[in-house]
Amino acid sequence: MRIYGDLGSGNCLKVKYIADALGIAYDWTDVISGTGATRTPQFLALNPAGQVPVIALDDGRTLAQSNAILRYLARNSRFIPSDDFLAAKMDEWLFWEQYSHEPCVAVARAHVVYRGGTIADRDPAIVARAEAALDHLDRALDGRSFLVGDTMTIADIALLAYTRLSPEGGFDLRTRPQLLRWIATCEHELGLPALGNAAQQQEQAHG
Amino acid sequence: MRIYGDLGSGNCLKVKYIADALGIAYDWTDVISGTGATRTPQFLALNPAGQVPVIALDDGRTLAQSNAILRYLARNSRFIPSDDFLAAKMDEWLFWEQYSHEPCVAVARAHVVYRGGTIADRDPAIVARAEAALDHLDRALDGRSFLVGDTMTIADIALLAYTRLSPEGGFDLRTRPQLLRWIATCEHELGLPALGNAAQQQEQAHG
Repeated sequence: MRIYGDLGSGNCLKVKYIADALGIAYDWTDVISGTGATRTPQFLALNPAGQVPVIALDDGRTLAQSNAILRYLARNSRFIPSDDFLAAKMDEWLFWEQYSHEPCVAVARAHVVYRGGTIADRDPAIVARAEAALDHLDRALDGRSFLVGDTMTIADIALLAYTRLSPEGGFDLRTRPQLLRWIATCEHELGLPALGNAAQQQEQAHG
Repeated sequence: MRIYGDLGSGNCLKVKYIADALGIAYDWTDVISGTGATRTPQFLALNPAGQVPVIALDDGRTLAQSNAILRYLARNSRFIPSDDFLAAKMDEWLFWEQYSHEPCVAVARAHVVYRGGTIADRDPAIVARAEAALDHLDRALDGRSFLVGDTMTIADIALLAYTRLSPEGGFDLRTRPQLLRWIATCEHELGLPALGNAAQQQEQAHG
């Protein structure tokens, strides 16, 4: 399998996280968002929608959309509940992530990290939606180790990616203790370095 | 089962379409978006994210996110491919719909239909993204009856909902023959009235 992606993108990191967690072998090709690399004829042949990540199976078939890739790679694994209703609740989080979390949390971060903006001049409407999304996630994790059921699912992996990077976009997770605990738990489960030490990142972001 | 939804919302109509197609009995409770009805304590107890549609099973468990509901209600039915990779391609379309189609095609329509706006004063950036999304869908349907495999899946149902309503938002489908043919096929398969006679709607919209 080959993964086409951008290691600065949470959507692409999700795919790396699940492949690494499941021990799926892959080659990685960097395709950097915002450089035109997703709009070349060669890339559009892989994904006509012009978005990373994309995976190409050894037989040449391709699949796009980070959460669809998570669902495919994790099929029949411990990361997808065998119970139909729990799997549906997992899907609920996956669609919420793409509709109500990524378009604000990731977009605010991209403004600061990639577009030469500052925390001060982020779009206030996007920031308000991102703060509300992070609050929603924090409340949902109250008294829970993971978003669905008692074990980590791809819902956690999908939400982890941009949430652990959110301090880079100026979001303060120190007021969200459930979120900080959950990030640490997920990082431990996935064997990730504590890049998501969000309180520490926040200190750095605020100087 | 009870469906909480707004019959003017494509996201809610998706749930009605699949329940009707599968002969699943339900009661319907109107919860109208944009009126505050999704922000009451009673509604937030059903869905803390404050969005319709929501379904409540007879045992009280609730599920939100239209495409998660589609996936749950259609499990083990003809509307979800049994082949893992085809199911993944179906998921790819479901996530694309929520990320790249609904936030522009539906938002432009809402501006005209619900927000007192006109076709002329729609947000140009949103219109451009919506036109690109409709073009992408039209190209994807070239030579195909349905989006994935040879039969209708919930990917078609998810994309149909707002696409067939898009002329209300000022989008001209007459230049997109694959899309018009696919809408008619889906309407026929689902036993829907030809409300999606998009060319005719467009004539009406443009007077």
